[in-house]
Amino acid sequence: MSTRIRYSTNLPSATWLKRHLRGSKDTKFLIIFDRKLKNKGRFAQWVRQFPLRYGVVAGEKLKSMELFSHHAHRLNKIAGAVSGRALVVVSVGGGSVGDFAGFFASVYKRGVGLVHLPSTWLAAIDSAHGGKTGLNLAGAKNQIGTFYPASMVVMCRSLLASQNPHLHQAAYAELYKISLLAGGSLYKQTSQLANLSTNALWEVLPKSVAAKNKIVGQDPQEKKGYRQILNLGHTVGHALESFYDIPHGMAVALGLKFALNWGERLGTTSVQTNSEIQKELESRLGLSQVERQLRRRKRIPAMTLKRLLHRDKKMASSDQVTFVFLDKIGKPRREKVTVSSVLREMRRQGW
Amino acid sequence: MSTRIRYSTNLPSATWLKRHLRGSKDTKFLIIFDRKLKNKGRFAQWVRQFPLRYGVVAGEKLKSMELFSHHAHRLNKIAGAVSGRALVVVSVGGGSVGDFAGFFASVYKRGVGLVHLPSTWLAAIDSAHGGKTGLNLAGAKNQIGTFYPASMVVMCRSLLASQNPHLHQAAYAELYKISLLAGGSLYKQTSQLANLSTNALWEVLPKSVAAKNKIVGQDPQEKKGYRQILNLGHTVGHALESFYDIPHGMAVALGLKFALNWGERLGTTSVQTNSEIQKELESRLGLSQVERQLRRRKRIPAMTLKRLLHRDKKMASSDQVTFVFLDKIGKPRREKVTVSSVLREMRRQGW
Repeated sequence: MSTRIRYSTNLPSATWLKRHLRGSKDTKFLIIFDRKLKNKGRFAQWVRQFPLRYGVVAGEKLKSMELFSHHAHRLNKIAGAVSGRALVVVSVGGGSVGDFAGFFASVYKRGVGLVHLPSTWLAAIDSAHGGKTGLNLAGAKNQIGTFYPASMVVMCRSLLASQNPHLHQAAYAELYKISLLAGGSLYKQTSQLANLSTNALWEVLPKSVAAKNKIVGQDPQEKKGYRQILNLGHTVGHALESFYDIPHGMAVALGLKFALNWGERLGTTSVQTNSEIQKELESRLGLSQVERQLRRRKRIPAMTLKRLLHRDKKMASSDQVTFVFLDKIGKPRREKVTVSSVLREMRRQGW
Repeated sequence: MSTRIRYSTNLPSATWLKRHLRGSKDTKFLIIFDRKLKNKGRFAQWVRQFPLRYGVVAGEKLKSMELFSHHAHRLNKIAGAVSGRALVVVSVGGGSVGDFAGFFASVYKRGVGLVHLPSTWLAAIDSAHGGKTGLNLAGAKNQIGTFYPASMVVMCRSLLASQNPHLHQAAYAELYKISLLAGGSLYKQTSQLANLSTNALWEVLPKSVAAKNKIVGQDPQEKKGYRQILNLGHTVGHALESFYDIPHGMAVALGLKFALNWGERLGTTSVQTNSEIQKELESRLGLSQVERQLRRRKRIPAMTLKRLLHRDKKMASSDQVTFVFLDKIGKPRREKVTVSSVLREMRRQGW
């Protein structure tokens, strides 16, 4: 099943959604939306056209497995009378709302329809695509989840434009990562963006989404391992994100820098590639200043780091992890490395 | 993905399971088992060979969504260190254990391996096949669930033989239903069973499993509607089961009788087919005595009946339900009928 991608200037009406989804007359939409969007432009007015709607507080707590049955009860009260065949969940929000709503859609009545309408650039570029849903179990991220691609992802320009511009940077790291994996014209376009404005991101969005979906399409359920290349920058990124409680995008950028430096030291990443990418990350995100700030804080203890790396779902075996190197732009390479070697390299790079 | 079916005289060792599953050396089994099996033969000794094991109390409470996060936490403590790729859940029990363990396997680490080892004939004949998993939401059955076929179903003769023979009758209704849908040699073999002993059921099992899987294979996720023919006898059966709290098998048998009588009255089921089936149900299950007992009890109020029928997941629309008639042996037919017409016919048949 492939996901339709649609672009819309404004928030779509129920009729628009039905038409683009090729839904039947019976289709009923259940909107699961981030409550804070109610303060954004015409959102409050728009959402009222849908009789079935459920506002949530975005964030990691929404993804808690412990609270899921509470939400499921309330959602069932709202939508229980609709047959599973007619029901379509529309998730309107960022990553946490999409993960929660996607998981709910994948297990409610053994699977109902799903549409993502991302409200953040990070979700529009990354998490709304690829079909991963996830809840957290006792604080361990995404231990419960499904592969459940949306039938449709709707990019709504006015909704994305209402986002605080300082969050554009967070999305940039994932966009840049995909461009590094894909190379070619996407990399060129991304590197040449004049700035990270709504206009600029909107322009590069279609190519970036296509590139991610092309990778996912070759290994939808991560069974062959190929899909793991999307993890470029994430092995160490996730550990830094957890320990220092920094935004996902910044953590991924730091993880990219780590992977490139490691590759250069091992002789597999060319000096030129590394230097080009470091320059880009520095000019867009001011990465070295962030690093300096973090390094003034407590160093991650070895035991904690091991535990954080062990949590990573890309574990190849009990003491190995699949690490993604980038040999050249457009040439990622997966390699099994020991957790200890990641730890040693982190110390070498000053973490 | 098709499910392997394997037959084994005794409980299988970890090595046997790995070999038949074509698992790798890294494969780790997590046994989720019905605790009361510990009193059966060599079960207690057998289960101790698996370091990762979790005993549960079988029954509807196990399927409660509210308690799922509690179980998931405990299971994660047992198996959290194993990578999702290496982990295989082995469900050992009847329907509720299979539904619970199957759902857990389908969402843990975005899906791990799954083997069913049914301990009841009802599970061996019906619920272990077809990939439906389910949890209950606020008492509504299977409102949360997934389609997640097991990689392998192992029929273990010694385990099935340890079941109390009075439960063989409960399995018989589902076996008989499948034989009515399939017709041909399965119907002949089922009708000619001398009795419902372990020997007799073991002999008819392979053909019955193949017949169910053939139906499921044509519509794995119930999207085309074809799979709904498996619901023969279940529309009214489920309502009777809920209201009178009777065993599933007996309820299905009563539902079969209802569907056949209705078909005959409408002129679509031949008088001869109906009379042949009524005779069979009577001689195997003593159905008319059960009916007399139930009819002495309170009649299901119309509102309750409507609510119970509405709960049915085969709702075609808000006031219609897809009902399965049997025109001839081997010739089921789905038809949309109104909830009111089911209700009227039930009254006509004395319910």
